[in-house]
Amino acid sequence: MTLTPLLQELINSLRCLPGVGYRSAQRMAFHLIERDRKGARSLSRALGNALEKVDYCTSCRNLSETPLCLYCTRPNRDESLLCIVECPADLLAIEQTTVFKGRYFVLMGRLSPLDGLGPEELGIELLITLLNQGDIKEVVIATNTTVEGEATAHYLSQLVKTRHIKASRIAHGIPLGGELEFIDSTTLGQALTARTEIL
Amino acid sequence: MTLTPLLQELINSLRCLPGVGYRSAQRMAFHLIERDRKGARSLSRALGNALEKVDYCTSCRNLSETPLCLYCTRPNRDESLLCIVECPADLLAIEQTTVFKGRYFVLMGRLSPLDGLGPEELGIELLITLLNQGDIKEVVIATNTTVEGEATAHYLSQLVKTRHIKASRIAHGIPLGGELEFIDSTTLGQALTARTEIL
Repeated sequence: MTLTPLLQELINSLRCLPGVGYRSAQRMAFHLIERDRKGARSLSRALGNALEKVDYCTSCRNLSETPLCLYCTRPNRDESLLCIVECPADLLAIEQTTVFKGRYFVLMGRLSPLDGLGPEELGIELLITLLNQGDIKEVVIATNTTVEGEATAHYLSQLVKTRHIKASRIAHGIPLGGELEFIDSTTLGQALTARTEIL
Repeated sequence: MTLTPLLQELINSLRCLPGVGYRSAQRMAFHLIERDRKGARSLSRALGNALEKVDYCTSCRNLSETPLCLYCTRPNRDESLLCIVECPADLLAIEQTTVFKGRYFVLMGRLSPLDGLGPEELGIELLITLLNQGDIKEVVIATNTTVEGEATAHYLSQLVKTRHIKASRIAHGIPLGGELEFIDSTTLGQALTARTEIL
């Protein structure tokens, strides 16, 4: 044993952060304890507070400190549009475009039977309640383009269409500024298939 | 505002970790709160514990939960050898070689007048007390090879030699397995200057 138990425990705990291996965790632990105790204290406090108070929005399953989240309580959002995303980070990414003005629904995952994620875990029942309220005219499905994300999108579109609500999928193709020469062939193929008429 | 205040605070707090920018901090915060609350709880606890109990060893200034650290209390260490390092991470790196069996002294920095780091901040007084006890026969100076590290090494060697104790510096040259073709010329020059006779 070359480290004190508490430092060792701190290093092990830091490894639960995504993308942090043993070496980074050690560097972080030394940094926090040697050079930034104030920052460490505020991190410990912020983590405790967030753990205690941040839960899921009862309407859209976004992370929220209040029963209804920021987006579900804002009066100026378009209630006829609902965007379904996999996680809060995706929601933020969409929000930052400032293009979408509707409401959100956060699955907190994607259909993945192997990981034990079925409709129940994704809060589909809550989504159905929302759809049945009758305000929603169009559902924008913005799950990722992975195999599981696509399967989830297909499942969701069925769910939406049987209720006579318009289902749409965000567009996939060449990123703006992307050069055809360097785009992977799957994306390029998709961009060709999904070509739009120039009017 | 697109995030709840507590999540925003957590993201800001995570940025005090070295090498973590806003994007990584956001990813970490979502990971902790969405997917690994258990890990987050143990991180918060470990951080709190370490902050409360980890302090400096009263003899060698290493990080320690007890007044004397692991290395200062171990009976089988060679008391006549003292290795001076800049920080606990350097100490660990040396310890992992299993080559060095003496005691350590941790400066917790290097002489850097511009950053307000003088002899006082590096615990030189404590080092002098150690040297004056008379047990130490050789001091191995293992500061880094930066300008400041070298200046610190020079300062320390003077301090040690005036007390008629042998001062040595860890060797600098070509890393084992390194190819001359790809070594920077400063290191190669140093390796030539410090060549050792083959007997």
